[in-house]
Amino acid sequence: MNGAESLVHTLIACGITTVFANPGTSEMHFVAALDRIPGIDCVLCLDETVASGAADAFWRTTGRPAATLLHCGPGLANALANLHNARRGRSGIVNIVGDQATYHRPLDAPLTADTEGWARSVSGFLRTATSAATVGRDAADAIAAARTGTIATLILPADTAWTEGGIPGTPRPVPNRPVPSPATITDIATLLRTGEPAMLLLGGRTLTDHGLRLAHAITATTGATLLAEVFNAKMERGQGRPPIERIPYPIDAAIAALTGIRHLILVEAKPPVGFFAYPGKPGALTPPDCTIHTLAALDQDGTAALAALAATLDAPEPAIPVTPRPTPDRGAPDLGTPDRAPIAPEAVATSLAALLPHDAIIIDEGISFGRGFSRFTHGAAPHTWMQVPGGAIGGGLPMAVGAAVAATGSGRRVVSIQADGSAMYSIAALWTAARRNLDLTIIILANRKYAILLHEYAGVGANPGRTAMDMLDLGNPNLDFVKLAAGMGINAAQATSMPALNTLLASSFDHKGPFLIELLTG
Amino acid sequence: MNGAESLVHTLIACGITTVFANPGTSEMHFVAALDRIPGIDCVLCLDETVASGAADAFWRTTGRPAATLLHCGPGLANALANLHNARRGRSGIVNIVGDQATYHRPLDAPLTADTEGWARSVSGFLRTATSAATVGRDAADAIAAARTGTIATLILPADTAWTEGGIPGTPRPVPNRPVPSPATITDIATLLRTGEPAMLLLGGRTLTDHGLRLAHAITATTGATLLAEVFNAKMERGQGRPPIERIPYPIDAAIAALTGIRHLILVEAKPPVGFFAYPGKPGALTPPDCTIHTLAALDQDGTAALAALAATLDAPEPAIPVTPRPTPDRGAPDLGTPDRAPIAPEAVATSLAALLPHDAIIIDEGISFGRGFSRFTHGAAPHTWMQVPGGAIGGGLPMAVGAAVAATGSGRRVVSIQADGSAMYSIAALWTAARRNLDLTIIILANRKYAILLHEYAGVGANPGRTAMDMLDLGNPNLDFVKLAAGMGINAAQATSMPALNTLLASSFDHKGPFLIELLTG
Repeated sequence: MNGAESLVHTLIACGITTVFANPGTSEMHFVAALDRIPGIDCVLCLDETVASGAADAFWRTTGRPAATLLHCGPGLANALANLHNARRGRSGIVNIVGDQATYHRPLDAPLTADTEGWARSVSGFLRTATSAATVGRDAADAIAAARTGTIATLILPADTAWTEGGIPGTPRPVPNRPVPSPATITDIATLLRTGEPAMLLLGGRTLTDHGLRLAHAITATTGATLLAEVFNAKMERGQGRPPIERIPYPIDAAIAALTGIRHLILVEAKPPVGFFAYPGKPGALTPPDCTIHTLAALDQDGTAALAALAATLDAPEPAIPVTPRPTPDRGAPDLGTPDRAPIAPEAVATSLAALLPHDAIIIDEGISFGRGFSRFTHGAAPHTWMQVPGGAIGGGLPMAVGAAVAATGSGRRVVSIQADGSAMYSIAALWTAARRNLDLTIIILANRKYAILLHEYAGVGANPGRTAMDMLDLGNPNLDFVKLAAGMGINAAQATSMPALNTLLASSFDHKGPFLIELLTG
Repeated sequence: MNGAESLVHTLIACGITTVFANPGTSEMHFVAALDRIPGIDCVLCLDETVASGAADAFWRTTGRPAATLLHCGPGLANALANLHNARRGRSGIVNIVGDQATYHRPLDAPLTADTEGWARSVSGFLRTATSAATVGRDAADAIAAARTGTIATLILPADTAWTEGGIPGTPRPVPNRPVPSPATITDIATLLRTGEPAMLLLGGRTLTDHGLRLAHAITATTGATLLAEVFNAKMERGQGRPPIERIPYPIDAAIAALTGIRHLILVEAKPPVGFFAYPGKPGALTPPDCTIHTLAALDQDGTAALAALAATLDAPEPAIPVTPRPTPDRGAPDLGTPDRAPIAPEAVATSLAALLPHDAIIIDEGISFGRGFSRFTHGAAPHTWMQVPGGAIGGGLPMAVGAAVAATGSGRRVVSIQADGSAMYSIAALWTAARRNLDLTIIILANRKYAILLHEYAGVGANPGRTAMDMLDLGNPNLDFVKLAAGMGINAAQATSMPALNTLLASSFDHKGPFLIELLTG
C-alpha cells in the first residue's frame, strides 16, 4: 500500500464520500488510488474555484466535509477565493493539495510555489505530509479538524503519495461544541428582563427551524428584537418556519437597523461592521452607547445556548405567523424588446416564492438585483437559503454545483440566484452541472452591468464618464448566457417578461436535470 | 488632489499607458480618478486571472509594464496563478490591489483577507500604502521596480485613495542590467576552446534575433551545442532568424537532450530540472559529471555577455540556414464525422507555418497536442513565440488578450494556440477580446480530454478505470467552443479537417478582429 492508497482508505474510513477534483501531474498517484479503491465519488471540476466552492456547499448541505483534490501551487491559488468564503462561513473542507516531491521542491522547478504560505490564512488546520507512512494519520487528523467546521489543508508531496509503506489512519471522535456557562445564560436573562432595548443577533448554525423558534420565544417574552447577520452560510426559511430578517448590506440602512439598540447579544455571530469603510461613516454598526454581549461564541453551540436561555426565561413557544404562499407575479405587460418594461426584483422574488418546490436549496449570489429577495420569500415552501459569507465574487455557481451534488437522490432541487457579472468568475461550473445531470435551476439576473459598483460609484459623488463606464458596464458585447450554457451542455432559455420567467421556472422545477434561465432585467 | 488622483498622475508620468482592471467597491475612488484624469487606457477583464495574464503579456510584447487594478483579498487571490507565470517569466507588472481602509481592516469585515501574505511570494516589490501623501511616491517606487522586470505589488487601502493631500511621484531612472565581469567572459571562452562537450542554455531576454546570432556564432566557432529553456517568455523565430530548439518537456527526452554534456553554460537560464519528479528518475537534468557555469545570471544582460564572448572568441557571424516556408498541409482525406481521420499535430503546425502573417505573436498554451509545433514552424514568416513559463494552467487566453491589446494599431496579429482543457480556466478572456475587437485568432485544440494527464497516468503504470477517466476525460458533455465564443461575442467556427482549418486560418488572418477556430483533433 502506497501513501496515496492509505490516504484513500483513510478518507473512506472517516466518512468522506465525495472529492471535488481538478488534478494535475503531481496528483496522478492519488488519482490512481482513487481509481483502484472503490468508495469515493470523484466529481471533476474544470477549475479549482469550482472545486473549492462546491466543497463549501457540500458541507453546508450535509454537515459533512467533502474533500478537494487540487493541483500544486497555482492550483491552490485558484481555489483561495472560495476557500475564503468557506472560512467565513465556517465550513468544513478536507482540502488536499498536491505538491512537488519533497526532494524535488528545493530544485525550484517552474510550478513550484509557496503552497503553504498561500494556504495558511484560510486554513484552520495546515500540514504538509512528510512520508508515506504518516499520510494516513495526517489525513485522519485533517478530517477530524474539518468535521469541526474548518478548512483542513493537507499538502501531499508526490513522493509521499507514491512511496510504499502507507498506513491507513483511524477515525477520530468529533467533540461536541462547547456550551456557554450557566453564568452567561443567567447574566443575559437578567439583562433581557430589564427591558432595555436589546437585540439578538444570530449567525452560524443557529438559523434553523429549532434555533429560530427558540429565538422567537425569547424575543416574544422579553421584547428584544431579532436579526441575522448580513451574509449567512445557511438559513432554514419558508412556510411554517419562524421568519428572520438580516442586517441590510447598504451602510446607511445597516446603521439604521441597529439604531436605538442598547444591548446587542451575539449568538454565533460577530460584532457587526460595515462591509467596507465609507468616508465619514462609522465602521462599527452598533450605536456608540450599545454594549455587546456574547451569548454563544463562534465556536460554541448557539442553539443550546438559546434553549438554555429560553428555559431560564420560562419563555413559551410563540405562535409563528403564517405568510400566505403568493401567486406568481405576472409583472407589467410585456411590450416586447427593446421597449419592454423593466422587471422588478420584487416580482421575481414573488414568483420564486410562489413556485419554489418543497425543500429546495437556494444559492444566493444575486448581488444588487437579488438583495431584497429575502423579504418576499417568507411564504415560499420550506427551503434552505445559502449566501456567500465571505463576499468573494464567484461563489454562486460552484456552490450550486456542490449543493446539487450533495442533494443528489434526495429529491431536493437547487435554485441558483445568480447575478451576471459574478457568474463569469466561475462559469465553468455549468459543465459539471451538465455532466452530473444535477437537479439545478440557474436564474441569471442579467442587468448587463456591475450595478453594485455603479451604485457605489454614485456614492463617490460623480457621474461616471466613458472610462469609468468602460469598467462598470457589461454591454458591448452583451453576454449571451443561453449560448454559454449550450456550450457546456446545459439547456437554457432567455426570459424578458415575468410570464416567460414563470413558465420557465415551473417547467424547470418539473424536470430532472439542470436548466438555466437568463432573465433580462433591465 | 486625493491619493487616487496622485496615483493616476504618477502612472502617467512614469509611462504607464494601460490598466487591466477588475475593480470592486474598495477601488471606486481609483476608478473615479482614472475617469477624471485622461491618459490611461482601462481594459475591463471579467475576472482577475484575465487581468493578470494580460498584464504579463503586455510586458512581453512591449517591454513596458502595464498596471492591474484588482479587488481586495480574494480578487488578488484569483490573479495569483498568472502572477506566478509572470514571475517565472520575469515580467514587469505594476500590480495595484485595493484593500479595506486602514482603520477598517482591524474590524475584520467579511472580505478582509491576508492580502500581503498572498502577494508576497510572487512580488519582487511589495508595499501597502499608508497615507494619501505617500501613495504617489509608493507608486513611483513600484513602477521603477516593475520596469526592471518584476511584479511590483502596491496595496491601496481605500482611505489612502480617497483622502486629500496626494502628491504625484516622479519617475525614477531604470538602471541598466549588470553585465558579467571580463574574467567570467575569459573563463568561459577558455573553457569552450578546450573542445570538451559543452552546451549554451539560453533563457530570459536572449532569445532575440540578435542574441541568437551571437549564440550561433559562438557555437559554430567552438562546436558547442545550443538549447533554450523548456518554457520561455519570448522567442523571436521564423524565416531569416537563427533557429533554436528547446529542452523537451517529457522527462526522458529532456534527460536524453543533455546526455554527454560536460559543461552547461547558463545565459539568463536556470540549471535545468524536471518539471515534476518521477519515481526512480533524477530531478536535475544534467548528467552527474556535467559542470554548470554561469555566463550571465538571471538579472544580468545575457545578450551583452554573448556579444563579449563572441568577440573574445573572434567568432564570425555564421550563415543562418534558410528553412523554406511550407505550404499548408491538407492532411488525410476527410471522411466526415465521426469516421474522419485524426488530425496530426505536425499538419497543424505546418499549416500554421505556411499561413502565419508577418510579425505575428503566438501565445502557446497548446499543452500536449501543441508541444511539438515548434520544430515545424522555423519556416514561418518572422514571428514572436510566447509560452507559459510558470506552468500554471490557464495563462493562454489572458496572455493572448494582453498581447493583442499591446499590439493594437501595430498591424501585428496574435495567434493563440490553446488546448481545450486549459482554455476553461480563463474562458472569460474571450469577452475582452470581443469588446476590444482585438486582432486575435484563437485555435482551440479540442481533443476533449486532459491528454497530458492520461499520458502521465500511463506512466503510473495502470490503465485508467472509470473513476480515473471521470477525472481525465472532458467528454460527456463535449464542450462546444463555437457556442462559448458566440456567448461572448466572438465569431467562431469548427474545423474537423485540415482543409477546413486552412481556410479558416487564412480567412481570420485577412480580417480585423477576433476569430476562434475549434479544431477537433481526435
